[in-house]
This record gives sequence, C-alpha cells and structure tokens, in this order.
Amino acid sequence: ALLPLGVTCVAVGFGAKILFDKQFGTPVNPSIRKGESKVVDSVDIEDLGNKAVFCRCWRSSKFPYCDGSHNQHNNACGDNVGPLIVKSKE
Amino acid sequence: ALLPLGVTCVAVGFGAKILFDKQFGTPVNPSIRKGESKVVDSVDIEDLGNKAVFCRCWRSSKFPYCDGSHNQHNNACGDNVGPLIVKSKE
Ligand code: FES
Ligand code: FES
Repeated sequence: ALLPLGVTCVAVGFGAKILFDKQFGTPVNPSIRKGESKVVDSVDIEDLGNKAVFCRCWRSSKFPYCDGSHNQHNNACGDNVGPLIVKSKE
Repeated sequence: ALLPLGVTCVAVGFGAKILFDKQFGTPVNPSIRKGESKVVDSVDIEDLGNKAVFCRCWRSSKFPYCDGSHNQHNNACGDNVGPLIVKSKE
C-alpha cells in the first residue's frame, strides 16, 4: 500500500541529510559567541600559571577554558574530543 | 497522487535527522585519532616559544596546531570557529 512508499521516502530523506552533512560538514560550535564571525582567543603565556586547560569541544560554560563538558558531549554523540593542556615542566 | 505523500515523507525524514542531531548532538571531530577514546593534548609552556596557534576545529592537518583549515570549514557549513593563540607579552 502507501506504507512502503512512505517508509522508503522517510529513509531517503534521513539519508539525504546524512549525505548533505558529509558534503558540507556540520558546525562544531552551536552556541558560543555566534555574533562573532570567527571566535579566536589569545592568551598570554605569562598569565597561564602552572597549568591551564583549554576547551576544544565548544560546549564549555567557561569557554575558552575546559569545564569537563566534553565528556557529556562524547557520551551523547559518540565523539572523542578533549581539551588542550598547557603546563609548566616544573 | 503518490507524489505529495513521497515528497512529504522525504521532508519528514530530513527533519527527523535534524531533530535527532539537536537531541544528541553531532560529533565535532570526524577523523583525528579516532582510535583514542578521548583526544587530549598536553604541551609544556617552556616549549611554546613566543607564539603557538592551536586548532579547535578538528580539521587541521597539523593538529593540535592550527593550519588555517578552520576558514574552509567555516565557509562550507556556516560555522564561526577559530584557533587558540598562546603568546608571550614581550
Ligand atoms: S569542556 Fe570542551 S574540551 Fe573540555
Ligand atoms: S585549523 Fe583548526 S582552528 Fe585553525
């Protein structure tokens, strides 16, 4: 009846979005400083202290610093991202 | 005929993928060190030199360093991500 057609077309639409995303990519930053055309952060080495942990997942509430949100993101969507640690050798 | 049904169901499938992605999130890292459960990088302050530019878009061929790939990513999918710059005040 109409059911196989409907189900097939839903699958086609779902797959089309997957292919569209593969072609163009998907944004990595949903919500941080979206008013800026490019979010760049600059920090001075002299201000880092002994250790600083920087976010690379764009989910931290303390961005540009990591707040552990990468774990929830990874669990939710099967990703494997984590922060950048800048530390003193001593 | 069957066309309105088919078109509608394709749209439903496309929209379902959009909602699914909103709910669970989409990975930010497609291909970097996917064998690792969590990609964390650690750098020593003493090794940074006067300036180091770190990737936060997961598209750089020189990851964890930025190679400018964020620009192509941003243009392709309408994102606004950019690197972390760590530099000396002098
Ligand atoms: S919260 Fe984003 S890398 Fe940790
Ligand atoms: S290449 Fe990834 S932030 Fe520049």
